[in-house]
Amino acid sequence: MTATPLPTIDDVAVAAGVSRQTVSNVLNAPDIVREATRQKVRDAIDALGYRPHASARRLRTQTSSTIGIRLGSLSRGGVSGAVLDRFLHALTERADSRGMRIMLFTAADEAAEIEQYRRLRDGADVDALVVTGTAYGDARLDWLADNGVPFVAFGRPWGSADLDDPRRPWVDVDGADGVRQATVHLAGRGLRRIGYLGWPDGSGTGDDRRSGWVAAMRELFGDDGAADADLEALTIRTEEGVAPARVELERLLAGGTELEALVCSSDSLALGAMMAVREAGHPKFPVIGFDNTPVAGAVGLSSVDQQLDQVALAVLDLLMGEHGRRVLNPDEIEGARHRLVTPKLIVRRSSHLAPVDEAGSTASGTNE
Amino acid sequence: MTATPLPTIDDVAVAAGVSRQTVSNVLNAPDIVREATRQKVRDAIDALGYRPHASARRLRTQTSSTIGIRLGSLSRGGVSGAVLDRFLHALTERADSRGMRIMLFTAADEAAEIEQYRRLRDGADVDALVVTGTAYGDARLDWLADNGVPFVAFGRPWGSADLDDPRRPWVDVDGADGVRQATVHLAGRGLRRIGYLGWPDGSGTGDDRRSGWVAAMRELFGDDGAADADLEALTIRTEEGVAPARVELERLLAGGTELEALVCSSDSLALGAMMAVREAGHPKFPVIGFDNTPVAGAVGLSSVDQQLDQVALAVLDLLMGEHGRRVLNPDEIEGARHRLVTPKLIVRRSSHLAPVDEAGSTASGTNE
Repeated sequence: MTATPLPTIDDVAVAAGVSRQTVSNVLNAPDIVREATRQKVRDAIDALGYRPHASARRLRTQTSSTIGIRLGSLSRGGVSGAVLDRFLHALTERADSRGMRIMLFTAADEAAEIEQYRRLRDGADVDALVVTGTAYGDARLDWLADNGVPFVAFGRPWGSADLDDPRRPWVDVDGADGVRQATVHLAGRGLRRIGYLGWPDGSGTGDDRRSGWVAAMRELFGDDGAADADLEALTIRTEEGVAPARVELERLLAGGTELEALVCSSDSLALGAMMAVREAGHPKFPVIGFDNTPVAGAVGLSSVDQQLDQVALAVLDLLMGEHGRRVLNPDEIEGARHRLVTPKLIVRRSSHLAPVDEAGSTASGTNE
Repeated sequence: MTATPLPTIDDVAVAAGVSRQTVSNVLNAPDIVREATRQKVRDAIDALGYRPHASARRLRTQTSSTIGIRLGSLSRGGVSGAVLDRFLHALTERADSRGMRIMLFTAADEAAEIEQYRRLRDGADVDALVVTGTAYGDARLDWLADNGVPFVAFGRPWGSADLDDPRRPWVDVDGADGVRQATVHLAGRGLRRIGYLGWPDGSGTGDDRRSGWVAAMRELFGDDGAADADLEALTIRTEEGVAPARVELERLLAGGTELEALVCSSDSLALGAMMAVREAGHPKFPVIGFDNTPVAGAVGLSSVDQQLDQVALAVLDLLMGEHGRRVLNPDEIEGARHRLVTPKLIVRRSSHLAPVDEAGSTASGTNE
């Protein structure tokens, strides 16, 4: 703060009639100061409202009680883009309860992000970093591990030998299990032809989510309708987005594809599918999304919630130990260095997209 | 960072074969050091990769190059709740281009937020604060102004004498103008019975937005259809949310209320209205929302964009001066202490809620 001069250690010394060193001793080594002097200094500290300066404390301890995280660009996003924003809320709240704050910064690319890490480390501005949007052979994780900077990644380094590397700690959501829950729920309602609408093969996250549906279908229906060819026939692939999903599903339904239900790899895909199903003029069927975004709540779409509060807790546990109040050196952390959080299926009736009767209550059955 | 010891000023002194004070002089008062010595010290600094410690710099200058902002709870939100998240992205990006970072913290209530301000000030952790969610007689603004802490509020202190107080700087979006733009746009398409769907009277933001519709209707139609009674008949009031808007509009349309278009005070209300209009089995009419949320983009809803990037720029200008690189004392800032940003109408066709023809292209006309 530039506008309000704070009382300094010198002000305390003058007010107490002692030397600066004596004040410092009272603060840092009270045992070597006589009781009467100690009391005089403490009275002066109280009277002036002096607090040992946080910057001085940071300088002494090389800690900042701050965790850094890069905030992505505004332009990214769409319906599901808010997941990282919601994670940030959860992380800020959980960090606060451990006396930690969150420092945000931006970076145009991976190299710029590493340069930001370097500056934050050199300045002792943060005690640790949280890395998002990790990819195979991520140079950011290499830099952090090589430089001994405490960090945790939100997201697995898919398909990499690093997946089990204890020097590359991560927390992730068990997407396969979330999709499995959705599939089992639909089967429990007596539905069999449960399709899967997801992204093109090759994305770690997308392939993982589909694997949960494959596993559930095999478990539920054995070879009777869940052979590889059956599952391939029930799989719809499209780019992310409401419009692509809607167009693709309209096309398939018009072409005679028979579905009794649909599990989707995102809320955007689910919303597009839901709209197509409503327009198609044939029996409606349930659609379940993934991410439990605000729009899913608004339109009454069932969706898999990532449990971001649990993710935030796990990130802090991996940085600070269970219930810890300061960032530890990585080798001080006990237990597993990787945590998989189980997501939770949120079941809703699609009341807002279903017809409303005259009394103002909403009909059900269009969706979950 | 706890894991990597950084080179200190003492390391530089040893490497250069000079005293600690000489290194300090080279850094802070190079003119008083002989050229040969200066070069020796600079070589040692380069060789060791020494950087003057940010905490030491903060301690010396009492600045942190950091702006603090409270992040609200995860539980708040809904479709429009992401506006502050999007502002945070814009602020972080714009702050970065001026060498500033953003510090996040949480607080359960106003008193807790003030306590956080106090701690951040005492620790010189931030140079300034950005305050959101301001209200009449906001104790947070009083505390900041009384303590000389630089700050800017995003949002006007509605209905308060503080509105023009230069000690309470604010940036806000001209909601009335955004709604006026939407109304004029609809009138330009030949529509006359343009309704307004907003929140109950008494919220500063809501009343302001409706005033833009009232002004536009009077300007466009004079006393011919824009008398007070006409405008009251065209005004629909409901609580925020997709479902309340949908239920209320279904009821009115079933009851014979005639509308040719609708301007709404939020995207949630607009989404609910859009769904009601589609279900009602009568001629469709255009609906325009406010906030330009991701869901508006996803379903093809026209909406008023708050231009949050402009808001972020204005906030920084009020804290740092035009193009400034450091937070100034409030009395160093020239010009107006209050900035009203003009929002921008984004016109879309509601392609995703309209029927899709067999070729996969989308029909138009359901909405803007």
